[in-house]
Amino acid sequence: MADQKKMVEAITSMEDDFAQWYTDVVKKAELIDYSSVRGCMVLRPYGYAIWENIQKLFDARFKATGHENVYMPMFIPESLLQKEKDHIEGFAPEVAWITMGGGEQLQERMCVRPTSETLFCDHYAHVIKSYRDLPKLYNQWCSVVRWEKTTRPFLRSMEFLWQEGHTMHETAEEAIAETEQMLNIYADVCEKNFAIPMIKGQKTEKEKFAGAEATYTIEAMMHDGKALQSGTSHFFGDGFAKAFDVQFTGRDNQLHTPFETSWGVSTRLIGAIIMTHGDNNGLVLPPDVAPIQVVIVPAQQHKEGVLDAARAVKDRLAKFCRVKLDDSEQTPGWKFAEYEMKGVPVRLEIGPRDIANNQCVLVRRDNREKYFVSLDELETKIPEILGLVRDGLYQRALENRENRTFTAHDLDEFIKLANSGNCFIKSMWCGDRECEDKLKEVAGVSSRCMPFEQEHISDVCPVCGKPATKMVYWGKAY
Amino acid sequence: MADQKKMVEAITSMEDDFAQWYTDVVKKAELIDYSSVRGCMVLRPYGYAIWENIQKLFDARFKATGHENVYMPMFIPESLLQKEKDHIEGFAPEVAWITMGGGEQLQERMCVRPTSETLFCDHYAHVIKSYRDLPKLYNQWCSVVRWEKTTRPFLRSMEFLWQEGHTMHETAEEAIAETEQMLNIYADVCEKNFAIPMIKGQKTEKEKFAGAEATYTIEAMMHDGKALQSGTSHFFGDGFAKAFDVQFTGRDNQLHTPFETSWGVSTRLIGAIIMTHGDNNGLVLPPDVAPIQVVIVPAQQHKEGVLDAARAVKDRLAKFCRVKLDDSEQTPGWKFAEYEMKGVPVRLEIGPRDIANNQCVLVRRDNREKYFVSLDELETKIPEILGLVRDGLYQRALENRENRTFTAHDLDEFIKLANSGNCFIKSMWCGDRECEDKLKEVAGVSSRCMPFEQEHISDVCPVCGKPATKMVYWGKAY
Repeated sequence: MADQKKMVEAITSMEDDFAQWYTDVVKKAELIDYSSVRGCMVLRPYGYAIWENIQKLFDARFKATGHENVYMPMFIPESLLQKEKDHIEGFAPEVAWITMGGGEQLQERMCVRPTSETLFCDHYAHVIKSYRDLPKLYNQWCSVVRWEKTTRPFLRSMEFLWQEGHTMHETAEEAIAETEQMLNIYADVCEKNFAIPMIKGQKTEKEKFAGAEATYTIEAMMHDGKALQSGTSHFFGDGFAKAFDVQFTGRDNQLHTPFETSWGVSTRLIGAIIMTHGDNNGLVLPPDVAPIQVVIVPAQQHKEGVLDAARAVKDRLAKFCRVKLDDSEQTPGWKFAEYEMKGVPVRLEIGPRDIANNQCVLVRRDNREKYFVSLDELETKIPEILGLVRDGLYQRALENRENRTFTAHDLDEFIKLANSGNCFIKSMWCGDRECEDKLKEVAGVSSRCMPFEQEHISDVCPVCGKPATKMVYWGKAY
Repeated sequence: MADQKKMVEAITSMEDDFAQWYTDVVKKAELIDYSSVRGCMVLRPYGYAIWENIQKLFDARFKATGHENVYMPMFIPESLLQKEKDHIEGFAPEVAWITMGGGEQLQERMCVRPTSETLFCDHYAHVIKSYRDLPKLYNQWCSVVRWEKTTRPFLRSMEFLWQEGHTMHETAEEAIAETEQMLNIYADVCEKNFAIPMIKGQKTEKEKFAGAEATYTIEAMMHDGKALQSGTSHFFGDGFAKAFDVQFTGRDNQLHTPFETSWGVSTRLIGAIIMTHGDNNGLVLPPDVAPIQVVIVPAQQHKEGVLDAARAVKDRLAKFCRVKLDDSEQTPGWKFAEYEMKGVPVRLEIGPRDIANNQCVLVRRDNREKYFVSLDELETKIPEILGLVRDGLYQRALENRENRTFTAHDLDEFIKLANSGNCFIKSMWCGDRECEDKLKEVAGVSSRCMPFEQEHISDVCPVCGKPATKMVYWGKAY
């Protein structure tokens, strides 16, 4: 227990300093290392393995809905970036420019992609000729670069890994349906696989993506009450396609412009998982993304038969889950702390007495609940308990969000709620940018989204008193 | 047949112009599109799906040998790149420089990684403290940039996708064993899964990697007799580790410097597959990398029962291979040509008469051999025939290489062979750079490798007449 205590003391408690707790966890769980490259991090094996699991879950859903993976260049010539006016205005301030290559000054500088709408449109103009070529449903897994002034691991870094889907459709209706479909897939994976409850909605004009007609978003509440935008899906209308001369011959034999969408999630989701489920012992991973789902810690492993039994259990578990047997010389106490820090969902303890009783002990990471399980029942009990961990995490996160979500009917109430601590505030809104800016100024919040599930809270905007058009979630955000 | 002929005519024959044939195939099989970005290509869905299959095959082998995936930043600050002298000299002329970011001139410029030895060493200096931390066996899948003057799809492009393994070991022996292990894995996957025979050997001083003590290589012969370096594995000694202050406390409680390796294969392997197996009807894909392994082409698909039977066959095949049913309105002739162009290893034809006979027709892409197979035997016959395709491709490639490999005993014979057409020439060599340069000058060849399987051809170097130390493979290379 001395070892265990020592490790646990090494993390700042989340109640004392949530930001420091977060930094401690990403370092001590060996998810990342800071690099010598400004604003860029190293994704270490344990962190990258989480990303690989996230990728697999999404990639399967994308392919099941007919999407194909491609790879576009990582550079965008300045002239290409400039073709869509709103887009260049949004991204120009935060790109990195290549000005020299092969020892020579370039005639035209190129930026490293901050996102790839321009490259996809450039390619789509080559390959879309007829309505028979539509829809085009492409996705790419890559890294992108945005020049951020302040950075935090996973949440905001100069380079980050993501996927970006870019699709073209015959009609606006089809494109909008695609935008909604992908947002629903994002929300579904986040809720079912990552155990993070999501609010689905539309971004306001102020918060939407540069060049988009509409941006849809999934918003999560972190353990500290702040919001995290976790995935977005954009409908572009035909603006980009027009700017890039993408045209097709329609069923009526006339030339038409197709309608475009894009949608993305990133390594930011690892930050969401940490800040939603983590606790003062470290990471808590939902089973579907955990690189190790069950860690076997033998007790009195030098006694005859213990390691043999542990290995036999490991071989059985390897058939249906990601399992690790730690038979190193460290004490069981050290191992308990180590795998709690790493957020392994279930610990399996097995020692001489367990073996004599044909049982083992399973301990849930999320609430430390213990189960004495017959060795004959592992194949049914372990998937069951992994399911309970997922459900427990989801419930805890949902309760946190519900406990910290409030309704404001007027500006006084709004400001009071905002000052009471991080939370989601639901209020009506007139739709004017001025009122949105005002709430940022007086309450320090931004609009998170206009949720698809609208509620009627009052008749007027609490800021200006004009008739309200929408109910909005507001909050402080990462 | 008119349709089929029309498509086939669209490819230049490989005997007329191999380079044009290659360009035609990569375009018509829809592997790539040229982009508006200088020297960069778009990997289209069919090309990227091949890469995904290649990745899966290697990644499983890497993980099975204890390697872990990570992700390093894509930028390298100039000061970091300069730490190892030979390395910077080798790469400085061909990097792309970022000089501006976030609207400002950078104080220190950064290049886009041409390879990541420097970044891995920088990280390893943080995480390697003790011999207990060794070996570190990391790999990353990413894209790299090298400023090439002339580019060709897959073979040489400014940006390309690859994997780069970077490992650190306690002793030089262990590091060398790792270098050999990874070269053997490369050769094994290339031979077994891609059906490309490989020559394994060591690069000469002239051809080795910038900063390496030794570079090992696998070399393949393309259909036109030219060589393609298909994968390399480098032993660095402790040079990089010293330059980056990577040190560990050894078993003797003293500080030591670890020994390093790196190894990589890239999308170039797609070029190797095309140029080894392709023919005048297009691509020919080895089954293990083919995005579609079996294409079902129904005959008289409007007749009752044909599409139902085709769909039933598809559902059965989907359980053990990658299958596509093309039930589009195109003629069977058009479909035959289309999937031959795309290199699908096996075509399954099924029509009313086949159904009446409870059979179907399987046609191999590599040699057009036909098999009439009972519908009851698909589960055994199809894997068997896919295996035959792989073996047939391997044998054909091996014969091509053997038919074009010659032995030179003196310089006259060497030059005569080199002038007779593209081929591999085996000769002895004294080990001097001058003689290597001379052969480039008078015979237009470069040293491919000093093969691990050495032969004794003559006692002296055919260029200078001094005693020979090594047998070398020479050839013209991509």
